[in-house]
Amino acid sequence: MAQQAYEYGPSQAAIDQLVTRFGDQVSLSSSVRERFGKDESFHPSVPPDAVVTPNSTEEVSEIVTICAHHHVPVIPYGTGTALEGHVGALYGGVCINMMEMNQVLEVHAEDLDVVVQPGITRKQLNEYLRDSGLFFPIDPGADASIGGMTACRASGTNAVRYGTMRENVLALTVVLADGRIIRTSRRSRKSAAGYDLTRLFVGSEGTLGVITEITLRLYGIPEAITSAVCTFPDVESAVNTVIMTIQYGIPVARIELVDETQMEAINNYSKTDFEVAPTLFLEFHGTEAYAVEQAESLAEIAAEFGGGDFKWTANAEERNRLWQARHDVAYACKAMRPQAQIWATDVCVPISRLAECITETQADIKASRLLAPIAGHVGDGNFHLCLIVDQDDTDEQARAEALHERMVMRALAMGGTCTGEHGIGYGKIDFLVAEHGEAVSVMRTLKLALDPGNIMNPGKILRV
Amino acid sequence: MAQQAYEYGPSQAAIDQLVTRFGDQVSLSSSVRERFGKDESFHPSVPPDAVVTPNSTEEVSEIVTICAHHHVPVIPYGTGTALEGHVGALYGGVCINMMEMNQVLEVHAEDLDVVVQPGITRKQLNEYLRDSGLFFPIDPGADASIGGMTACRASGTNAVRYGTMRENVLALTVVLADGRIIRTSRRSRKSAAGYDLTRLFVGSEGTLGVITEITLRLYGIPEAITSAVCTFPDVESAVNTVIMTIQYGIPVARIELVDETQMEAINNYSKTDFEVAPTLFLEFHGTEAYAVEQAESLAEIAAEFGGGDFKWTANAEERNRLWQARHDVAYACKAMRPQAQIWATDVCVPISRLAECITETQADIKASRLLAPIAGHVGDGNFHLCLIVDQDDTDEQARAEALHERMVMRALAMGGTCTGEHGIGYGKIDFLVAEHGEAVSVMRTLKLALDPGNIMNPGKILRV
Repeated sequence: MAQQAYEYGPSQAAIDQLVTRFGDQVSLSSSVRERFGKDESFHPSVPPDAVVTPNSTEEVSEIVTICAHHHVPVIPYGTGTALEGHVGALYGGVCINMMEMNQVLEVHAEDLDVVVQPGITRKQLNEYLRDSGLFFPIDPGADASIGGMTACRASGTNAVRYGTMRENVLALTVVLADGRIIRTSRRSRKSAAGYDLTRLFVGSEGTLGVITEITLRLYGIPEAITSAVCTFPDVESAVNTVIMTIQYGIPVARIELVDETQMEAINNYSKTDFEVAPTLFLEFHGTEAYAVEQAESLAEIAAEFGGGDFKWTANAEERNRLWQARHDVAYACKAMRPQAQIWATDVCVPISRLAECITETQADIKASRLLAPIAGHVGDGNFHLCLIVDQDDTDEQARAEALHERMVMRALAMGGTCTGEHGIGYGKIDFLVAEHGEAVSVMRTLKLALDPGNIMNPGKILRV
Repeated sequence: MAQQAYEYGPSQAAIDQLVTRFGDQVSLSSSVRERFGKDESFHPSVPPDAVVTPNSTEEVSEIVTICAHHHVPVIPYGTGTALEGHVGALYGGVCINMMEMNQVLEVHAEDLDVVVQPGITRKQLNEYLRDSGLFFPIDPGADASIGGMTACRASGTNAVRYGTMRENVLALTVVLADGRIIRTSRRSRKSAAGYDLTRLFVGSEGTLGVITEITLRLYGIPEAITSAVCTFPDVESAVNTVIMTIQYGIPVARIELVDETQMEAINNYSKTDFEVAPTLFLEFHGTEAYAVEQAESLAEIAAEFGGGDFKWTANAEERNRLWQARHDVAYACKAMRPQAQIWATDVCVPISRLAECITETQADIKASRLLAPIAGHVGDGNFHLCLIVDQDDTDEQARAEALHERMVMRALAMGGTCTGEHGIGYGKIDFLVAEHGEAVSVMRTLKLALDPGNIMNPGKILRV
């Protein structure tokens, strides 16, 4: 499927108009543009022609209207913590920096929901909510913006218990490609009123519109939160423990696998002294009694598969340190080989195939003579490969690309998906086609219906 | 927004071609057509020109291709238990009876999912699964087909714990308006790969395509299931109990309100001897210990609001009788006044507004001199009004319509939706516009992008 050449208007006329209207909310500096052309991945920066920082939905609408008029691409930007080149200005155009729109607009504590602007990060939101006894559970590791998490259908460690952004976004305000403003849904917990526009925009990676307000589900902070680690003789035993936990319906809040290589990297980077062995990081939420009951059930299962004793964390501070170590795996990988690049990728399979998928991938890593620790949200069947590659070594880079392709095709052959949570960006466009076949043409039809000029984050998710 | 006149081709040429291809899978009998032009509601039958009964996705694709070629409407049909005129052949055309496609195609017990054809009903599916220790929880009351439940985004009594069809459909096979067959997703629990086509078709009421296979999430049958009823001095106390239960995060499996009038109707119809008072029907799922813990917490809350003691059901048979009585409310209403029609409608509001919404509605019923019992899935903020109206009495009918409109507008003003689970059909098209405003034009754009000839269940959800 060849890329159809899209002719965009020159940006200059649009930028002139933006500068006239928005003054110093517009930046043309090359260092700013460089920064906003790049996410956290190895994908090189592709700078936009300008960066505009709006303060309201109406300002976003004005910006998009100006860009639409001049037929210039629009790329929304949050914290830049995406991993598949989601934000590169592949066809130039205007980056909208959403980070000044970072307010909590409404807290409905009694309804367990909150309305926020897209620029607030998940940690800022939870800090804001702290005294209310409520929290927002979705935790992709990075302190991403809620807007970016929504646009990329983020999930992370807590998804096994609380779902992903798909399940936790109740409603959105969106600026469409022609500048119109819509609200996709109401605050009620469910609705059978018309097409599910909310879910259409969740995960659309900025290609259908700019998300300017998000209504999120919240949860009461559990009475008891306890964390533990447990080591296993091999990855297969650890994964089999996870599979049985899920099958038994134990509502574990977090169940994360970290392989041996990754544990060593964590110890070195985070100055921890975890045992270097395949490890499950666990967390239980509930009433005091129920958290204990869950932990006991899981400990029994782990013992069956040769798992060691649970090592409990004693308090909130220790717990945060434990999860920070888990979250810092990418930096830990980077530290293993500072001159190399980090290529973080993920797949997700039905849980019955997870042990097989991971062990085959580990064998493939070894056969490919590559350094690639594995960690994952295994309760969802989701795992990450952190390829540590010297991209200047063409042979090594070629081996890495071949390994990556085999891993994705292995996951697809097992009924899985090419990405559980990182998204498509432009890094996985061809795999989307491999995964969805004819359905990609339906996605293309939807894209062109809502954005006939292909100005919204063009070149991402699919080629139009 | 006026209905644009849509010119359809004459059905005869399409029917001739269908008869040639499908023989006695095609029915032209007027009694069959009459039956397939009607759902369970008061909306009159609008018969299709023919009813075709396919046996496979490929046959559905052939039928749709023939209809598309002749530009003839296509209306998929399940059990006909919809309530807003979802299946009337408003512009003639061909009804596709999906009920022969009723097989379980794959059970993945280890992944807690199942692949079914759309014609299997929820009770048939649970009967099939019984020995596996798994169940499918979504329970809209009627023994609806899984295809219909998917197309209408059904929910029901268990949604407060297990979510609705939105949360429990993992993937679909769909025949599009031009006969193409797509698969919307894989079996993995989550994915960030492209637009969420699954959720777009869930709730699309047959207007975007025909659903021919559904992959559903399953759950382990809980170790302990206990049911109880509890009466309250007034509806407000009962609803306040519900609100606090949800706010405390007690994962009650069912929490259903039945008002006084409805309780009397139930006793008369189901030969039960429940106390005639505002009542909560409750169910708890979990381990033995955890089910008890949930029930104790809820009993404490109920007592605070003046609720009576929990009356427990002793065994599965009694439990089924209890829930059957709850499910038969519409028939119980019908029996209250056999010469009248039943107009079942629903709204859903943020739970903090639920008591207010119900009590204002009750006052309105009284002031309108109407008979309209209330029951509802109150844990979701969702309740039903069962208007019992003599439609030949024009004054009474006018009062009912006015009451209905006020109820919907009241729910919308409280941040709610015009339907929590019944859907739009053609009964609530104007309320969809009142609810979504400009977003309805986006729905229209999507509809015409996927079905440019407007042949898929035309006249439902929106006017194109």
